[in-house]
Amino acid sequence: MSLGEFDLIARYFGRPTRRAALGPGDDCALLALRPGMQLAVSCDMLVEGRHFLPTVDPRRLGHKALAVNLSDLAACGAQPLACTLALALPRVDEAWLDGFSAGLYELADAHGCELIGGDTTAGPLNICITVFGEVPAGEALLRSSAEPDDEIWVSHAIGGGIGDARLALEAFRGQVSLPGAVFERVRRAMEQPQPRVALGLALRGVARAAVDVSDGLLGDLSHLLHRSDVGASIDVGRVPRSADLAAQPLALQRLCTLAGGDDYELVFTAPPAAHARVLEAARGADVAVSRIGRIEHEAGLRLVDADGQAVDRVWASFDHFSA
Amino acid sequence: MSLGEFDLIARYFGRPTRRAALGPGDDCALLALRPGMQLAVSCDMLVEGRHFLPTVDPRRLGHKALAVNLSDLAACGAQPLACTLALALPRVDEAWLDGFSAGLYELADAHGCELIGGDTTAGPLNICITVFGEVPAGEALLRSSAEPDDEIWVSHAIGGGIGDARLALEAFRGQVSLPGAVFERVRRAMEQPQPRVALGLALRGVARAAVDVSDGLLGDLSHLLHRSDVGASIDVGRVPRSADLAAQPLALQRLCTLAGGDDYELVFTAPPAAHARVLEAARGADVAVSRIGRIEHEAGLRLVDADGQAVDRVWASFDHFSA
Repeated sequence: MSLGEFDLIARYFGRPTRRAALGPGDDCALLALRPGMQLAVSCDMLVEGRHFLPTVDPRRLGHKALAVNLSDLAACGAQPLACTLALALPRVDEAWLDGFSAGLYELADAHGCELIGGDTTAGPLNICITVFGEVPAGEALLRSSAEPDDEIWVSHAIGGGIGDARLALEAFRGQVSLPGAVFERVRRAMEQPQPRVALGLALRGVARAAVDVSDGLLGDLSHLLHRSDVGASIDVGRVPRSADLAAQPLALQRLCTLAGGDDYELVFTAPPAAHARVLEAARGADVAVSRIGRIEHEAGLRLVDADGQAVDRVWASFDHFSA
Repeated sequence: MSLGEFDLIARYFGRPTRRAALGPGDDCALLALRPGMQLAVSCDMLVEGRHFLPTVDPRRLGHKALAVNLSDLAACGAQPLACTLALALPRVDEAWLDGFSAGLYELADAHGCELIGGDTTAGPLNICITVFGEVPAGEALLRSSAEPDDEIWVSHAIGGGIGDARLALEAFRGQVSLPGAVFERVRRAMEQPQPRVALGLALRGVARAAVDVSDGLLGDLSHLLHRSDVGASIDVGRVPRSADLAAQPLALQRLCTLAGGDDYELVFTAPPAAHARVLEAARGADVAVSRIGRIEHEAGLRLVDADGQAVDRVWASFDHFSA
């Protein structure tokens, strides 16, 4: 890229900062933390064709690129402060930059997260955001602190569920056919996830362990179980799903809810005595939470129905079919 | 990539941390700052073919990927603390990962910079490192604080100079032919730059403004002048060069020293009264510094010889020839 093109990019991402001690344009950005606070850091790299489709609206992509990072802060109960953006672009496309930056800044502003710096270069499209939050020392929600008998919860939109993003992906893949309005709704779930930042903050001191659901509920929960050295039973009938997803075949429902990915909901554990406080935290954050299981001493993840009977991983066949 | 391949990558980059409050493996890493300190953040994205040649030894690439970021911390006078690494890989190549991670950790260890997290994904090769340092509030070296009559200095290896990295690039491009030993030496300058972290720390309270030289001495100095709203005269005869570079035609010398790129030296300004303290800071940091010019009220960058006569930008013709 020529210098002129770099100037162009600076125009899209060089907005002055108000809270950071020093924003874009120097060798480093400078951030101050309040006394007693720790810095929470997370970093995600998004690649075309793997994390988003070439057809995605750049405004939604700008939203999603930041959302997946804010979701990591949410899972730690951290308050967003700032982010950096590194961007490799095959060419300077003003319409694309206009949409992408608008989507990114819109979500950033909604969460008080300032863009403080970054890098741009020519190259195959690649988006790498590193996000910074603050959390009182010792109060971060971790993956490693679940305890036996904790209740297991998952967040979701009020009246909705998890798995819609995967349902959209299956529709894009031509594996399912959806009415237009349903497709648009689940496509939005896939392309514009809402990071559960307010819930994460409200769960500090209430939940014991948490992880965000980015690769599928069971997969991400397994990471939490492994780090906490515990196991769990999940009542698959309790895993919340939207009416649109509930209208699909059972195998597809289970694929989408249990192994879907791209949900960016929080799965977390809390002692049974905190049950009412969990519900209160969710109400305050304007989000729903569903209790889906329980932490157990015995390692491993057991799927049961409402009667406690083991449930086969029936979606595996669907997954194979769609692979 | 399969889960097994991700486990493999975790093996290369999952080394436990000792100082960070929380290292790799959770949704976020956690860092504590000492009281009175600000966080300095910088982020660089490296793309194959643009920032490094496909033929580079992965160990040197791991070094360089971190070095270019540490150089930004050095230019701010910040003490390195930690970094995150996001990596897109076309395939899992154990020999490559082994070399890359060894080179990265070696330089990280030398500067007390812990790898606290990151992301890996399949995709065209892309390396994005975000680096974190700390600096006492208000003491960071900025680009914006140069003042008229400040002396302008550039750092370099003792007995060396700047521009060797560009000389190596011209040799790779077939524009110049170098004896084998000379080629190996300048190639190392290009592939394994030494970030001037100790010098940056020693210049706190001594230098007034600083920037690191990554895109060429004059280009990066121009950013500093612009942000400080000043101009400068540079005595081109004083710009330090190695004996190997000094043996090349004058136009090539000037191309390499003034517009070379990939030097990762510091160019900085200090009041004349601080002259002796600058030399002392350099001695303490085991690096050389050369005074190459002076900050002036009048905007713009003037190139002069030892007699104060204007110097043509003669290297432009060489640059055109080699483009």
